[in-house]
Amino acid sequence: MDNRRIGLFDSGLGGLTVMKELMQLLPNESIVYFGDTGRIPYGTKSVDTVIKYTKSDINFLKTFDLKAIVTACGTASAIALPHLANQYDIPVMGVVAPAARAAARATKNGCIGVIGTNGTVRSDAYRKILEKENPAIQTVSVACPLFVPLVESGYAEKAATKMIAEEYLKPIIESGADTLILGCTHYPLLKKVIAEVMGEHVTLINPGVSTAYEVKEMLGEKGLLAEEPHKEQYRFYVSDDPSDFAKLGSLFLERSISGLAEQVDIEQYI
Amino acid sequence: MDNRRIGLFDSGLGGLTVMKELMQLLPNESIVYFGDTGRIPYGTKSVDTVIKYTKSDINFLKTFDLKAIVTACGTASAIALPHLANQYDIPVMGVVAPAARAAARATKNGCIGVIGTNGTVRSDAYRKILEKENPAIQTVSVACPLFVPLVESGYAEKAATKMIAEEYLKPIIESGADTLILGCTHYPLLKKVIAEVMGEHVTLINPGVSTAYEVKEMLGEKGLLAEEPHKEQYRFYVSDDPSDFAKLGSLFLERSISGLAEQVDIEQYI
Repeated sequence: MDNRRIGLFDSGLGGLTVMKELMQLLPNESIVYFGDTGRIPYGTKSVDTVIKYTKSDINFLKTFDLKAIVTACGTASAIALPHLANQYDIPVMGVVAPAARAAARATKNGCIGVIGTNGTVRSDAYRKILEKENPAIQTVSVACPLFVPLVESGYAEKAATKMIAEEYLKPIIESGADTLILGCTHYPLLKKVIAEVMGEHVTLINPGVSTAYEVKEMLGEKGLLAEEPHKEQYRFYVSDDPSDFAKLGSLFLERSISGLAEQVDIEQYI
Repeated sequence: MDNRRIGLFDSGLGGLTVMKELMQLLPNESIVYFGDTGRIPYGTKSVDTVIKYTKSDINFLKTFDLKAIVTACGTASAIALPHLANQYDIPVMGVVAPAARAAARATKNGCIGVIGTNGTVRSDAYRKILEKENPAIQTVSVACPLFVPLVESGYAEKAATKMIAEEYLKPIIESGADTLILGCTHYPLLKKVIAEVMGEHVTLINPGVSTAYEVKEMLGEKGLLAEEPHKEQYRFYVSDDPSDFAKLGSLFLERSISGLAEQVDIEQYI
């Protein structure tokens, strides 16, 4: 047993969807969350910048006594983890590999769609892992850069969003994919419109869910599961104003975190 | 006469629309441009974070021998300049005051619309200056957070953009405004669809144009106009990958800046 905390980070508050899954699946675990709200988004930035920011996020989290770190951000998982994951003395997991494995298990016709930020799609990280899982799998990836601002602007249910989704998802529908990886933490919040556009026969993979299961499995295998939670079970840090974060974050988490978030000067953790 | 450079900065490359106006109006001036592409956008971030970033942008530019600094970013002009502009030994100008003055001159019915980022609209900076110009002026401000991602995703001419513009601009149309300030550097790139939605009788104010004229006026009054340009007349610095910037920036400027942009670690200029 190991009562140390799990560290979890994201470019902003989207990673709270992953945290919610972890909280449900592992109610004894204590978690410290960092959201890089001062430098969000990562999905439009260059490889070197995403690696630099991911390093500093991990360096900040490492100031706590942790047993594992989870990268909730799709872009950081896709771009930075291949360069960084093995450099630490504790496991550092991302969302890409668990989601790819879940998709490889789910597909029946061997054709998998991937949607994500520009950075995630450019990295080709999903295709590389899917090919390792099963070289016969066909992958079709499409960047959907407007999905994050549409979610953050409260446009999830609007007609314009459906119109944009129809255009983005066209190549994936045409490929015949029977499984679609929602490769960015915000995309599960567009699940309804994406499911409408893709049709009922397509399985949507939420990387947050797949990752939470693999975290549980990994902790179990290594004998690292927690016996009981810390007094302050959940801690939240952000690099921009914590009150804005707490307001929106309570929606993402479906529980109030008002007053629990603190600000950190992330640029110091180089 | 004063041959020192003008410093110009923006949260990203949108400020190049302001630089283009300056280059046309003042062909003898030498300009150094900084785009904070590693921390873009500013429009969704908190007041304190925008002030912090604006300070570091100015601190970096001050490493050059400058005679004036222009804040091309609408959000930094609206939020940070009221706190910072008087702290420097050279003039630091923003886009808000010149655009507000141009709008006050243009309006016939005294009703002016303002569109900008969340940060700009929350700051109420335009209304404050318009009231000083003429207390009888009515101001209607609307945040249009999707306009920047729509421009950056190449959606300026799409049907979804028109649908979103119709929704955003509705309160301004209903107010009867005869003048509309495009209060963010990206918005002039949506001029066509905004003009279609607003109708022909509404005057659109491009803050870049108004600012370039006021810069020329200010330099003339203070005897600071340049006699001849430096050998390297235009220099470009960014905080993310300079090659991405140069590609898109050449479109914004309508001239190639390929190979001219350099990267700077802006987080060091605190």
